[in-house]
Amino acid sequence: MEHKILLRESEIPRQWYNLAADLPTPPLPPLGPNGKPITPDMLAPVFPMNLIEQEASTQRWIDIPEPILDILYRWRPAPLRRAVYLEKHLKTPARIYYKDESLSPAGSHKPNTAVAQAYYNKVAGITRLTTETGAGQWGCALAFACALLGLECKVYMVRISFDQKPFRKLMMQVWGANCVASPSTETNAGRTILAEMPDTPGSLGIAISEAIEAAVTDPTGKTRYSLGSVLNHVLLHQTIIGLEAKQQLKVAGEKLPDVVIGCAGGGSNFAGLAFPFTADKINGANIDIIPVEPTACPTMTRAPFAYDHGDTACMTPLLAMHTLGHAFVPPPIHAGGLRYHGMAPLVCQAIVEGLFAPRSYHQSKCYESALTWAKTEGAICAPETSHAIAATIDEAVKAREEGKEKVILFSYSGHGLMDLAGYDKYMSGQLSDYELPEEVLQKSTKVLENLPKAPARKTGRW
Amino acid sequence: MEHKILLRESEIPRQWYNLAADLPTPPLPPLGPNGKPITPDMLAPVFPMNLIEQEASTQRWIDIPEPILDILYRWRPAPLRRAVYLEKHLKTPARIYYKDESLSPAGSHKPNTAVAQAYYNKVAGITRLTTETGAGQWGCALAFACALLGLECKVYMVRISFDQKPFRKLMMQVWGANCVASPSTETNAGRTILAEMPDTPGSLGIAISEAIEAAVTDPTGKTRYSLGSVLNHVLLHQTIIGLEAKQQLKVAGEKLPDVVIGCAGGGSNFAGLAFPFTADKINGANIDIIPVEPTACPTMTRAPFAYDHGDTACMTPLLAMHTLGHAFVPPPIHAGGLRYHGMAPLVCQAIVEGLFAPRSYHQSKCYESALTWAKTEGAICAPETSHAIAATIDEAVKAREEGKEKVILFSYSGHGLMDLAGYDKYMSGQLSDYELPEEVLQKSTKVLENLPKAPARKTGRW
Repeated sequence: MEHKILLRESEIPRQWYNLAADLPTPPLPPLGPNGKPITPDMLAPVFPMNLIEQEASTQRWIDIPEPILDILYRWRPAPLRRAVYLEKHLKTPARIYYKDESLSPAGSHKPNTAVAQAYYNKVAGITRLTTETGAGQWGCALAFACALLGLECKVYMVRISFDQKPFRKLMMQVWGANCVASPSTETNAGRTILAEMPDTPGSLGIAISEAIEAAVTDPTGKTRYSLGSVLNHVLLHQTIIGLEAKQQLKVAGEKLPDVVIGCAGGGSNFAGLAFPFTADKINGANIDIIPVEPTACPTMTRAPFAYDHGDTACMTPLLAMHTLGHAFVPPPIHAGGLRYHGMAPLVCQAIVEGLFAPRSYHQSKCYESALTWAKTEGAICAPETSHAIAATIDEAVKAREEGKEKVILFSYSGHGLMDLAGYDKYMSGQLSDYELPEEVLQKSTKVLENLPKAPARKTGRW
Repeated sequence: MEHKILLRESEIPRQWYNLAADLPTPPLPPLGPNGKPITPDMLAPVFPMNLIEQEASTQRWIDIPEPILDILYRWRPAPLRRAVYLEKHLKTPARIYYKDESLSPAGSHKPNTAVAQAYYNKVAGITRLTTETGAGQWGCALAFACALLGLECKVYMVRISFDQKPFRKLMMQVWGANCVASPSTETNAGRTILAEMPDTPGSLGIAISEAIEAAVTDPTGKTRYSLGSVLNHVLLHQTIIGLEAKQQLKVAGEKLPDVVIGCAGGGSNFAGLAFPFTADKINGANIDIIPVEPTACPTMTRAPFAYDHGDTACMTPLLAMHTLGHAFVPPPIHAGGLRYHGMAPLVCQAIVEGLFAPRSYHQSKCYESALTWAKTEGAICAPETSHAIAATIDEAVKAREEGKEKVILFSYSGHGLMDLAGYDKYMSGQLSDYELPEEVLQKSTKVLENLPKAPARKTGRW
């Protein structure tokens, strides 16, 4: 048996898969300031029209333009690896496969959509993109994509990550991007928050507000905003992960997996792997699909499903999603990419319908899993990815206890070479876990009371 | 055409290639303290006997034990990539291929020999390894290998790198190794040097002295020393790089390359790629083989070929090599892996025979090449690797000027994600170049006068 299943470039998927076409209940539309579904022209100052159309599409398969594939070939198709060394260590009868998304030049799955978004913007005549970044993976990915496609790039990086990860900023600079800590003094949104909370560690919600403001206020009209997760078109671009994995499992002689696992901050990495298999589940396959989040930022496991803004300054349309409230500032845990107050509407819709079984872990358990991983499989994973590994280990141990030969598939979303400060804290015993107190959750979700209500969704048979 | 040529695990080379079998003139033997060739038992306190035998072997092909391959499969066979985007940027008719050694968990080519050495030591009953590291790539590689094979690992890291790259130490810790700055107060060699030069940036020569002392003075007898480059057996283990590349060029429809390029500090990465092609050159093929070093540490391009110690405290046997003198402390350039005073004897022998054409570059030109690489091919390379890229760009431009469709092959020895401080210095205009003054060279090589002389070597017809 080969330890890794490789596809040729000629075997790369040539279409993305759109879950919106197959969800049992149609997704709830985003709402504008007037409480009514937004129209494409309302989004036009923020995104190019080709991506706005993609965002609203319910077409099942969408062609991947050749120039995007030409860049993805640098690291795609990505290997599907069998974690034989971890299996041996756990003495599990489960066969553990992971899709290795750490091999892109930016080090994570993020370039899958960064390249696509930069391409569509370029085709639409846009010359400059703004964005936010949490852990820095998304900022690096967009900087990389803009460098290769010849666009300018401006990144607002959540301050806690900016301070913890100075090298992320340097990576973006190598690719020619401009990166500042958020909240910054460059935008109204940033200045307002700094006046109220000068010592804030920042949040993705704040950084999104700044990046959108910087895009829509550019007088040249040649700047747009780019989001690294949450939205439908972003998740769509990531489905190449799961589509490749499906082909590769076949090559490995496997049918469908029994368990699919991914960490979820905004939801794009998880969705990228899981959505193509969710289609099988909708069609009757028996698959446990598990998005994993930090206990410190329990969006899927404890927050209500409601209409809320995607950013702190309420500049985005209202999205129907699990949300901790748009003003929620999560504690400075090390998995910076999992500190978002909301979650992708498509992922949330599937959760409400009972298709996914979300789970949360404390960061200390995740780092423990990451060290086990490093000493068995050899690689140092991102703190975000360690959440998926923790769940995978639990599922593999369960399979051992049940004596079942399960197939477990998870997404290895990125490497942790830029995130070693968190490992340092864990290894030196300075890491603490955080359980969100119920009263804090109540308080942070109070803002939802004044927003339009999401209608109750019927749950499916899964 | 595919952008990367992949081999299946079943196609991995199962034997290493030993250039010592084919060199036109037999290599000069290492000499002991008495000036006579050393015997295997003199090395026994330092290395296990199975590696000592390999060091002295003149057998052309040596089998790779299965348990070593089983670990190498984590990232091998490594991709051979075509640098199509750089080719376009340079408008060159040359076809540029590079062997991507950055995908190992430790991020460089070093694990190819680290795994082999840890394995042979384990088989010989050794439980603990000591070593030195310059840039940190070797220390990480040995820490990784020891973690997977269950050995203890102690690393002496050159102080300038230790200070510039705190995350390298953390990587080693994740794999369970113990890493200290060298010179340290833990050894006689370290204490002696600290007493003379308390502010020294350190050097590989000093760190080697400390690591050897720590190995040979362990009263349990279960500790040995492991070297990351220079020695014959280390170069041997790296030939898997060139052997894979040769198979992959065939798959790509190429015959032999016209130009082979690698950066050379101790010589193992360069030799790993170049030696299998050197055999073709000895047999008549017309190949330019170019080892590249920093102008600031000009071992191959300016230093004499002489017998010298491999370390500063004169604990190693005398090796016949190009050497700047064992007490030479190179300036703190950012390519920490290219700051060694000597060079692998097998590489030097081939240089003397005229098989290789060494070249040196200033670090500013190398960083300029690294930025061009990042913005065309997308990846951020190690400062060491940037030397090979600088030479590759020069050769590709030359091919354009000559209008020749050359095939250029180089070794992409590692990624630069742990080395961003150097990029920062370059991008902010704080980097300076250094040309070794002739009088400093004269002074540093004066120590060679009191050592046995290397007999003159006849040069070949290349």
